[in-house]
Amino acid sequence: MAIEPELEHPRKAFGYAARDSSGILSPFKFSRRETGEKDVTFKVLYCGICHSDLHMVKNEWAASTYPLVPGHEIAGIVTEVGSKVQKFKVGDKVGVGCLVGSCLSCQSCHDNLENYCSSSILTYGSKNIDGTITYGGYSDSMVADEHFVISIPDNLPLDAAAPLLCAGITVYSPLRYFGLDKPGLHIGVVGLGGLGHMAVKFAKAFGAKVTVISTSPNKKDEAIKHLGADSFLISRDHDQMQAATGTLDGIIDTVSAFHPLLPVISLLKSHGKLVMVGAPEQPLELPIFPLLLGRKLIAGSNIGGLKETQEMIDFAAEHNIKPEIEVIPIDYVNTAIERLLKADVKYRFVIDIGNTLKSSS
Amino acid sequence: MAIEPELEHPRKAFGYAARDSSGILSPFKFSRRETGEKDVTFKVLYCGICHSDLHMVKNEWAASTYPLVPGHEIAGIVTEVGSKVQKFKVGDKVGVGCLVGSCLSCQSCHDNLENYCSSSILTYGSKNIDGTITYGGYSDSMVADEHFVISIPDNLPLDAAAPLLCAGITVYSPLRYFGLDKPGLHIGVVGLGGLGHMAVKFAKAFGAKVTVISTSPNKKDEAIKHLGADSFLISRDHDQMQAATGTLDGIIDTVSAFHPLLPVISLLKSHGKLVMVGAPEQPLELPIFPLLLGRKLIAGSNIGGLKETQEMIDFAAEHNIKPEIEVIPIDYVNTAIERLLKADVKYRFVIDIGNTLKSSS
Repeated sequence: MAIEPELEHPRKAFGYAARDSSGILSPFKFSRRETGEKDVTFKVLYCGICHSDLHMVKNEWAASTYPLVPGHEIAGIVTEVGSKVQKFKVGDKVGVGCLVGSCLSCQSCHDNLENYCSSSILTYGSKNIDGTITYGGYSDSMVADEHFVISIPDNLPLDAAAPLLCAGITVYSPLRYFGLDKPGLHIGVVGLGGLGHMAVKFAKAFGAKVTVISTSPNKKDEAIKHLGADSFLISRDHDQMQAATGTLDGIIDTVSAFHPLLPVISLLKSHGKLVMVGAPEQPLELPIFPLLLGRKLIAGSNIGGLKETQEMIDFAAEHNIKPEIEVIPIDYVNTAIERLLKADVKYRFVIDIGNTLKSSS
Repeated sequence: MAIEPELEHPRKAFGYAARDSSGILSPFKFSRRETGEKDVTFKVLYCGICHSDLHMVKNEWAASTYPLVPGHEIAGIVTEVGSKVQKFKVGDKVGVGCLVGSCLSCQSCHDNLENYCSSSILTYGSKNIDGTITYGGYSDSMVADEHFVISIPDNLPLDAAAPLLCAGITVYSPLRYFGLDKPGLHIGVVGLGGLGHMAVKFAKAFGAKVTVISTSPNKKDEAIKHLGADSFLISRDHDQMQAATGTLDGIIDTVSAFHPLLPVISLLKSHGKLVMVGAPEQPLELPIFPLLLGRKLIAGSNIGGLKETQEMIDFAAEHNIKPEIEVIPIDYVNTAIERLLKADVKYRFVIDIGNTLKSSS
């Protein structure tokens, strides 16, 4: 029989967990390991609510184990470091994103692409090397090997830093890897949510002209006036889309729902690149002729490695790039999840863990 | 009313044409333009039968005009050159591939990618700048601007050179552009026909380990013993495919029929590249998760530019790379098309135009 989570490790921890696929979170006592010699332990102050948290609490990817403590956009202050930790000291501002472990010996790890290591350990709902289940950032404390801890620059507020650790790196990494970070390029962003609004900000910081493509006409003003996009296309407006045929060098597609690819591919110039960062559960329909005739490509990208995540955070701090957030107390989390399902947030919920998560015992 | 093809131009020409979508070719008298000052005129000696010729004669891409003289793998001997021609002289061995024109002023043309110019003129069934329809290489003579004429090295026989001008460049170009030309890579080739067997030969010449993926178990011996592939997977053998998961750096998919992409994508390592060079008419089902989890990409590629086509021909001559061909007389062409539909050829039909196409007048 499995050991209860509160008995696995010596250190008491407290958070919010889903107990089943109903998707409802409730207070949860559990435990975390002692600070190992290469570990950093920190008090969690803020945690972003990522769209994948919704999928996981409801077991929509058929990979969830319960109790499940979500959260992989975690920021806080170091409270203890192991004897061999080199990069951090008590009091440092730090964060943890989607990963807390990887093999560190395969080609991907060697290339600083721990996110593509086949033995990577996710921050929550994953099996740790000691066989216990990982718990995420909807909780009062975290402990992780320093390799997987990000240093947060002083001028970046912790609440704004949190969503960069997943939403930020998810769009930053493909813009870099696929060469879509060159000044003067014309970049499209499909979907204006947690990922999309960060893609607009990073692409603008790289010097691109940015076009937002969305199903929601009412996002136009926000996209252009507030987020700095240069233009806006309503994806269901055939004439608008037609007029923009062949104008984009690259596109970051953040939409997780089933959607037609042909109109998106048609927006690309020859040799243009469409990168999917949303994760539709069903296969999409891929027309081959338009790929052939313009040597276009469609790719996927999944978060980023630790070195690149640090680079992204430093870049964001330097260029004053911050996500738009709505800070909420932990007892609002179930309402927030409902609102997120309806895309009723601009653009990321961040839970104020430090001030609102209190254990009763 | 349109002028009859035999009256459009001053020079008599003779070939085989489809008159309607029945797909049957028959003798056809038409005309070609006089040699312009930048034109090269040549006697056609050989012309390959490309799979796209089948689609075009039957109007399966809904873009055919009749009468239609197919053929875009054309090789012969120069008979006349214009006053401003610099690269060719009478008696030279030359070829023409899929293109006889492009705007020569757009970005694609500037980048030596005339194949992606939106105003490119196809070798047959396309509208020329003078408004007449282009006729292909199933005919006794060709005339083309020297920019679109390829020089064929002396050590490359003309019959073997012909299929390189479409089948060869179609697989060579993506191997180069997508960085799949590095020694030591492991390259997959899906489908072992006209395109696939050339992909095996070029990939081997680049120093790759090559795996052929095919639905036909009886192609294994041929692939390995005769073409030099290193291994062979039967795409319908789940265990074989499973065992090869994550082993390939890149794949050239030459299959034009509808086929599942997931098993093919699964063969790729992380960051692997699947390039489609076949042209399925229906959209394929594209699962997004496997792309995301390994930062994989799927791309299309369509022939190559003129500079690269010359480079490919020179590379083939230097490395003694020749297609496997079955040389046929012109009056066998309808039978050859029937056999090609059944994939009953190893691996390319080449029509012996010089010795077998004779006008009765």
